[in-house]
Amino acid sequence: MSDANAMMERIGQEARQAARRMSAADGAARNRALEAMAKGLLAETAAMQAANALDLAAAEANGLTPAMIDRLRLTDKVIHAMADGVREVAALPDPVGEITEMKPRPNGMLVGRMRVPLGVIGIIYESRPNVTADAAALCVKSGNAVILRGGSEALHSNRAIAKCLAQALADAGLPAAAVQFIDTPDRAAVGALLKSDRYVDVIIPRGGKGLIQRVIEESHIPVIKHLDGICHTYVDREADLAMANALTFNGKMQRTGVCNATETLLVHEAVAGAFLPMAARRLHEAGCELRGCPRTLELLKDMVPLVPATPEDWDTEHLDAILGVKVVASLDEALNHIEAHSSRHTETIVTRDQRRAMRFLREVDSSAVMVNASTRFNDGFQFGLGAEMGISTDKLHVRGPVGLEGLTSLKYIVLGDGQLRQ
Amino acid sequence: MSDANAMMERIGQEARQAARRMSAADGAARNRALEAMAKGLLAETAAMQAANALDLAAAEANGLTPAMIDRLRLTDKVIHAMADGVREVAALPDPVGEITEMKPRPNGMLVGRMRVPLGVIGIIYESRPNVTADAAALCVKSGNAVILRGGSEALHSNRAIAKCLAQALADAGLPAAAVQFIDTPDRAAVGALLKSDRYVDVIIPRGGKGLIQRVIEESHIPVIKHLDGICHTYVDREADLAMANALTFNGKMQRTGVCNATETLLVHEAVAGAFLPMAARRLHEAGCELRGCPRTLELLKDMVPLVPATPEDWDTEHLDAILGVKVVASLDEALNHIEAHSSRHTETIVTRDQRRAMRFLREVDSSAVMVNASTRFNDGFQFGLGAEMGISTDKLHVRGPVGLEGLTSLKYIVLGDGQLRQ
Repeated sequence: MSDANAMMERIGQEARQAARRMSAADGAARNRALEAMAKGLLAETAAMQAANALDLAAAEANGLTPAMIDRLRLTDKVIHAMADGVREVAALPDPVGEITEMKPRPNGMLVGRMRVPLGVIGIIYESRPNVTADAAALCVKSGNAVILRGGSEALHSNRAIAKCLAQALADAGLPAAAVQFIDTPDRAAVGALLKSDRYVDVIIPRGGKGLIQRVIEESHIPVIKHLDGICHTYVDREADLAMANALTFNGKMQRTGVCNATETLLVHEAVAGAFLPMAARRLHEAGCELRGCPRTLELLKDMVPLVPATPEDWDTEHLDAILGVKVVASLDEALNHIEAHSSRHTETIVTRDQRRAMRFLREVDSSAVMVNASTRFNDGFQFGLGAEMGISTDKLHVRGPVGLEGLTSLKYIVLGDGQLRQ
Repeated sequence: MSDANAMMERIGQEARQAARRMSAADGAARNRALEAMAKGLLAETAAMQAANALDLAAAEANGLTPAMIDRLRLTDKVIHAMADGVREVAALPDPVGEITEMKPRPNGMLVGRMRVPLGVIGIIYESRPNVTADAAALCVKSGNAVILRGGSEALHSNRAIAKCLAQALADAGLPAAAVQFIDTPDRAAVGALLKSDRYVDVIIPRGGKGLIQRVIEESHIPVIKHLDGICHTYVDREADLAMANALTFNGKMQRTGVCNATETLLVHEAVAGAFLPMAARRLHEAGCELRGCPRTLELLKDMVPLVPATPEDWDTEHLDAILGVKVVASLDEALNHIEAHSSRHTETIVTRDQRRAMRFLREVDSSAVMVNASTRFNDGFQFGLGAEMGISTDKLHVRGPVGLEGLTSLKYIVLGDGQLRQ
């Protein structure tokens, strides 16, 4: 057995055992552990910053961009935010052990479901070391054990954070192995993790497309993922155009480098002439590049600078101040375009027409489908779910923000009094 | 492109388009299609039996056992049962479009979830041709398109049934391609189906372990499966022994060749002396072979014939009148044995003690966990869910009986009035 496999075998076994103890622990014990984690992060600030300094020095030596180095940096503010985040997770309702829908059967037995932890969760993430604390807190709250694999550029920082979290678990009487960190930059360790079917119940990759593709290809463990966010704002024939203008601007420009930003604006031809000039002007003035379909180019000729959209634009997550703009002849054409090009993340319709709104809600097959709201709202906090592990664009198990519920499953429970099957 | 790949490409594209139309169709249209399917099955009885005769002749020529040939046979009774089954599915509540939990956010927008079809479901099954109709009915009711791949020994029968179902869909104004049948015995077609990530949202294998293992290994498409059913009945220290005797007998002997039959009996040592002789005698008299741990062998010496249990027995799904029997020193030992050997299908505790019952319910990690009820109840009809596609022992998405709900997903929906993200 290779070193990486032997290490994962040991980590996996310990995680499995820890998961059982976590699942049996009551909510108060898990909350005590979370409070100890928050306190530990604050108490160990100096140690974590010393570790972080090693990563920062390596990052500079390796020529990382200032933006990347900035994301790595564990300032006092970042550490306080991590501790606050852990406490916010502790304050969420306990999902574990919740029993729903106990219904009597004709023979008198009760059948229902109980929410239980998934078990062992493997998380592979890139860059920001605060993910170590955020992800661990969600896993502890939901009664799971977690195996964390961070980016090599944050190895020292992640190690220091994970050590602090595991110590807090032990101090609170829960197994330290409920939060384990794969403490090596060896890429073979990821391969070994992806093959740990026996120990790991689900893998959550948080990173670029390359990482996610690798996970899908190498692993037979179920995956919770999102590949990309090609989100659409559709301005319907019946739209309030001032509202449409505000929602388009907000969807695209409120923050551009995020998965729920609008990447393509679809506009019904009946309102394109009235709507596009004002929307385009505002976007252009804010520095957004517009890439138009032929009809858009014609409509906005001499008004604002435009680039002709290429076919690739409709399938691209720009993550930047760039917006594809397309005029459509009907709601059906909008639905067809979305069906063909959406990454099934977030779509919104702007309309006053109830029937058209309901058709859009019903027929668009995305993790969140909205009426008269900004695509930027597809987010755990905005939805009122609390902290999240990411946004799932999968259809099975969990769609949209992956919060505590997504880290649990429902098993059937039966309460009988000696019932026999006839 | 190989023939199999080209065929799957065509089938996949048509299924995708059909899925969109099925998802948009209202419940009445889907129910009309189901009624047409039931009528069609009855009207085409002669054609189906003619096709079935070809499969039966081949089965005899190939030396299949009488039991296997019997499972293949489309008698009038079997065809009536198929039609009745389709009508029962039609009568279930429509799961599609159901909106749950619309909650207001502080900014006034409403956030909730809508139940929607998964899309395209691939089902790979062995033997019994009635699965063709059962599975198709569940997929149509839940607004999905289905691609069916049956066993080669039922090729003619499945083809005739699928043709009849597709025709009924078309007659009811829904796309015939919502029920497609892979009409070739070529095994490469299965490989092509397993690689159809672009078109197929989930694969449901219904068959032996070899089939399921192949699906997991070859496919990156999510799978809903159950590998096996190693189910436990645990007779606690606080059990009502007469009830325990009845539940043990029912769990093991009510039907032996099924996944929710009890395979291992665990007995607390405090009651083993009183319980085991009466339970063993009853099981033995009914023809059940008992395989005991050393303490069981000692306790039952000279009372009933016993075989010493091998370590493999605790990990074997016998699917026969064979029961492993083990004496445990405590509830913890029972929980440990279940954790180590259960296939996470169904476990039951017999006890009068509420705390011990709750611990068992909470800590056993199986698709159904029961108190004072027979393991044989883990079944869609018994749970009141209606027809099922099988029992999932997965943890993600759906656990236990896979009925209509398991064939759908929940997407987030947002109803706003122009809300912008701050």
